[in-house]
Amino acid sequence: MSCELCRDSYPHELWRDADFVVVDASDADLPVFVRVIARDHVKELSQMSAQQRARLLEIITRIEREMIRLVQPDKVNIASLGNMVPHVHWHIVGRWQDDAFFPGSIWSARLRDMPQDAFAVRRQAAQVFLQSLPTALSGLD
Amino acid sequence: MSCELCRDSYPHELWRDADFVVVDASDADLPVFVRVIARDHVKELSQMSAQQRARLLEIITRIEREMIRLVQPDKVNIASLGNMVPHVHWHIVGRWQDDAFFPGSIWSARLRDMPQDAFAVRRQAAQVFLQSLPTALSGLD
Repeated sequence: MSCELCRDSYPHELWRDADFVVVDASDADLPVFVRVIARDHVKELSQMSAQQRARLLEIITRIEREMIRLVQPDKVNIASLGNMVPHVHWHIVGRWQDDAFFPGSIWSARLRDMPQDAFAVRRQAAQVFLQSLPTALSGLD
Repeated sequence: MSCELCRDSYPHELWRDADFVVVDASDADLPVFVRVIARDHVKELSQMSAQQRARLLEIITRIEREMIRLVQPDKVNIASLGNMVPHVHWHIVGRWQDDAFFPGSIWSARLRDMPQDAFAVRRQAAQVFLQSLPTALSGLD
């Protein structure tokens, strides 16, 4: 079976190191959405090395901190499911009370359209956030 | 505002240390479901101390490893949302291809009933898993 996350390059790639790639996963409903993908094909978190897990946690933490600093979502959601693609990848999503799914998960029933002006403001802040990530992720162990 | 996760004791508590409580969150659709709750009221992962975050990662990893060893789900899902209760808590859920929501998230549309015999087998394995957790979580830094 081929795995769609086993690849040399990724669409909307923002940053990579030897073990992880960070991509922009935003869409028309979710203006601030980043994904961290393991470069090795590994199914579950506990099957990675302790060093890889620690670096993954640091990457997620730095992304979240930068997201809060630059786009101020009402809440940050973090998740690793992999039911459709069993290759470790983590979703880090800025959520707002007026977004399409709030207070549900981003996989829950769609409830509304985010107001267009709010989307535009957040997407603009998101561009600054995305551009800041290579610096924010530099100097990892 | 009162927070429903700020409390001295938790229903279905399995284990605790100074910073985290682990509870059984299983239900009629999800026979293997554990939650790790921060004891301090903190909204986002990046607002915890680095030491707390590292211990949280180790707790999640040990729970996942023990879940895979003892109940062998098809996939493990890990998530921290907090849209409804903005107090750090993590869901660790064993998933099967025949469960109520697969391949969706546990917050996605309900698709089916898990076969009753499969549920019974998994719930029995889950009891062994839950009983093993205090030992699996002993000796954390």
